[in-house]
Amino acid sequence: MDFETYFQGELANVREEGRYRIFTEIERHCGRFPHATRYVDETTHPITVWCSNDYLGMGQHPLVLDAMHAVLDECGAGAGGTRNISGTNHHHVVLEHELADLHGKEAALLFTSGYVSNWAGLGTLAAKIPGCVVFSDALNHASMIEGIRHSRAKCHIWRHNDAAHLDELLSQYGPDVPKLVAFESVYSMDGDIAPIAEILDVCEAHGAMSYIDEVHAVGLYGPRGGGVAEREGLMDRITVIEGTLGKAFGVMGGYIAASESLCDFVRTFSSGFIFTTALPPALAAGAAASIRHLKGSEMERARHKERVATVRRRLDAMGIPHLPNPSHIIPVMVGDARKCKRISDWLMDNHGIYVQPINYPTVPRGTERLRITPSPVHSDGDIDRLIDALSDIWSQCELARRSAAA
Amino acid sequence: MDFETYFQGELANVREEGRYRIFTEIERHCGRFPHATRYVDETTHPITVWCSNDYLGMGQHPLVLDAMHAVLDECGAGAGGTRNISGTNHHHVVLEHELADLHGKEAALLFTSGYVSNWAGLGTLAAKIPGCVVFSDALNHASMIEGIRHSRAKCHIWRHNDAAHLDELLSQYGPDVPKLVAFESVYSMDGDIAPIAEILDVCEAHGAMSYIDEVHAVGLYGPRGGGVAEREGLMDRITVIEGTLGKAFGVMGGYIAASESLCDFVRTFSSGFIFTTALPPALAAGAAASIRHLKGSEMERARHKERVATVRRRLDAMGIPHLPNPSHIIPVMVGDARKCKRISDWLMDNHGIYVQPINYPTVPRGTERLRITPSPVHSDGDIDRLIDALSDIWSQCELARRSAAA
Ligand SMILES: Cc1ncc(COP(=O)(O)O)c(C=O)c1O
Ligand SMILES: Cc1ncc(COP(=O)(O)O)c(C=O)c1O
Repeated sequence: MDFETYFQGELANVREEGRYRIFTEIERHCGRFPHATRYVDETTHPITVWCSNDYLGMGQHPLVLDAMHAVLDECGAGAGGTRNISGTNHHHVVLEHELADLHGKEAALLFTSGYVSNWAGLGTLAAKIPGCVVFSDALNHASMIEGIRHSRAKCHIWRHNDAAHLDELLSQYGPDVPKLVAFESVYSMDGDIAPIAEILDVCEAHGAMSYIDEVHAVGLYGPRGGGVAEREGLMDRITVIEGTLGKAFGVMGGYIAASESLCDFVRTFSSGFIFTTALPPALAAGAAASIRHLKGSEMERARHKERVATVRRRLDAMGIPHLPNPSHIIPVMVGDARKCKRISDWLMDNHGIYVQPINYPTVPRGTERLRITPSPVHSDGDIDRLIDALSDIWSQCELARRSAAA
Repeated sequence: MDFETYFQGELANVREEGRYRIFTEIERHCGRFPHATRYVDETTHPITVWCSNDYLGMGQHPLVLDAMHAVLDECGAGAGGTRNISGTNHHHVVLEHELADLHGKEAALLFTSGYVSNWAGLGTLAAKIPGCVVFSDALNHASMIEGIRHSRAKCHIWRHNDAAHLDELLSQYGPDVPKLVAFESVYSMDGDIAPIAEILDVCEAHGAMSYIDEVHAVGLYGPRGGGVAEREGLMDRITVIEGTLGKAFGVMGGYIAASESLCDFVRTFSSGFIFTTALPPALAAGAAASIRHLKGSEMERARHKERVATVRRRLDAMGIPHLPNPSHIIPVMVGDARKCKRISDWLMDNHGIYVQPINYPTVPRGTERLRITPSPVHSDGDIDRLIDALSDIWSQCELARRSAAA
């Protein structure tokens, strides 16, 4: 078989569908984020980033940077080993305590990313618990799907956010069958939020374990940034809370928080936890500083909410259609891969505004969108420029508007 | 089902087998590595680390730290997004070029870890190429096994390092069947090295793709640190070279280096590459500085070889049995999980010498060992203390010695 020809053919198909991805190469400017520099060939251009998941700008917070600089000098660059073989640094242990406390759980377990924590966490539980059946929300993230797939456990997909359908599916199984229910709190592409309490009622009625991905909620919701489950007083009813250190906390890494024995079980049996170099101590220290700060500071969350509301209000005033939802994510729907990319290119080239087009496979075909994520560090001027530019292209391309009342 | 009881029961079994892992909590001291502090409850103890995979001490190299400090200040803590959604930083692009150049390949693709690069790289190739059959060395690393398993491609295991057996297995398939051969260069637990040229001869005879994991070789072997394949002039005959940034390069992250279209293919189709926050720019910059330095500097590699040879010679002189191999890894065989742990504890408690016991599932039961990794930063005094302590416990426990001639 001629592999090169095969690869090129597959890539040509992707290009033809208009969903070939050219990564936008940027350099964020610490202290001036969301402002950044874009690299194109040999030239650079100033841009404003409107699609980052550094939702609160914690990636440039002095407390986070100070902690990272200090531990870089104290401990060096990498961890130097897997967690079991010389790679467990004091700063990992401190961070795991910080995370357990954040979620009111007995323990927490660190992974190299949120992706790996989902893949390895769900994968290990579903594979190792004999006869475990998984119930997965239809819109769960790729990392959860891959973990479940990897486990080879039997899996049922329940209709998105539909607790009644979940109940129906769970009812097929007797009380002795181990059941694991996996879902998210904030769904990152539509920005909708799961009916967590209802889902937990159903889980409890069937004796099922509950596993929630709060990746797009930790740091952002709840009085201490524990996520939507904290805000709703539900953390203690959830078996496993999974999160990332790479979005609102501004660094990198992932984790699960749960009972002592569950974390110890995953720690002991999970290939994706065991056989990989631990996070650099400086990242652990930076993340711990970020979490600690956001536990005590409401300012960032308040300003975040206000910025999101302001952008929404301004879009409404211009009649630019966006998906209504109760979260911080503003999806401006386009519904066509090529058009979505053209709008994004135009914003970038003419206004230095960076909003990545979101195409398949991240979202279903036909629901292509611009996903806007306002943050506390976006100024009024930044918002003015975003709205003017969007309004401009909406006029130029004669895109549909809706009345402010709609 | 009572999940807590189940978890506790499984953990009790692991404890009974003597392979329950208690992580050793340490704090490396940048500039004084391999010296570190161990945390036990509320107390701290000075130790010397003899089991790190920061093989060359690059984790404390000033060039690496300077690059990380600078980019931390320039770009902030995290990347702020996935590679496709605002997370591609200039420093990722520079690092990918550095890696492609290191291996003489057209392109390279970064992952969050070596584990993920194997899992996602092999997983994507084996799953996406229609009818692909995988041929995997019997001692391949967990991350490769999980990637292959995940792909659900048909897989044959060939006897460790046995090119003739590989040939036999490949011969079952006609030329039109896509074949992927996966192996390592340096096997991390026995320290043996694959007969790469022979394996490539077989791959080429059957038109199979070759995929080599050089995780324990990059930075350490070859005139520019390109690995064993570089040393043997074989890089251009290998389809995919996979490596880590977390061991000899001293930071964190993983990659594949291959043709432009292969990397583009994996970039486009790999869930584990697409759906995860990119590496922090500072890590990318630190790794690039480390690679660049080791391309031009032979000093660390020369000193590494000398330290390894010295430790081996001293062990031989004392009759302490270690597995002979052509690499930098010195496995001192014990062959019993409990005994291995006891020796390790004794070294730590009485001499502040940290050599992690390596037990199942990292190595097969009955082959438990102490895995010693000398580095350029271990002094003569460090070596004296290690040898004295080992000799002491060998006497105390009346462990078998062999004559220096054996
Ligand atoms: C819902 C969800 N879960 C998990 C992840 C993975 O987290 P991380 O970026 O830390 O790998 C992401 C995005 O990246 C996500 O959107
Ligand atoms: C052979 C081999 N491949 C891959 C890995 C994973 O690399 P990383 O530690 O960067 O995840 C390891 C060890 O961790 C390894 O020993």
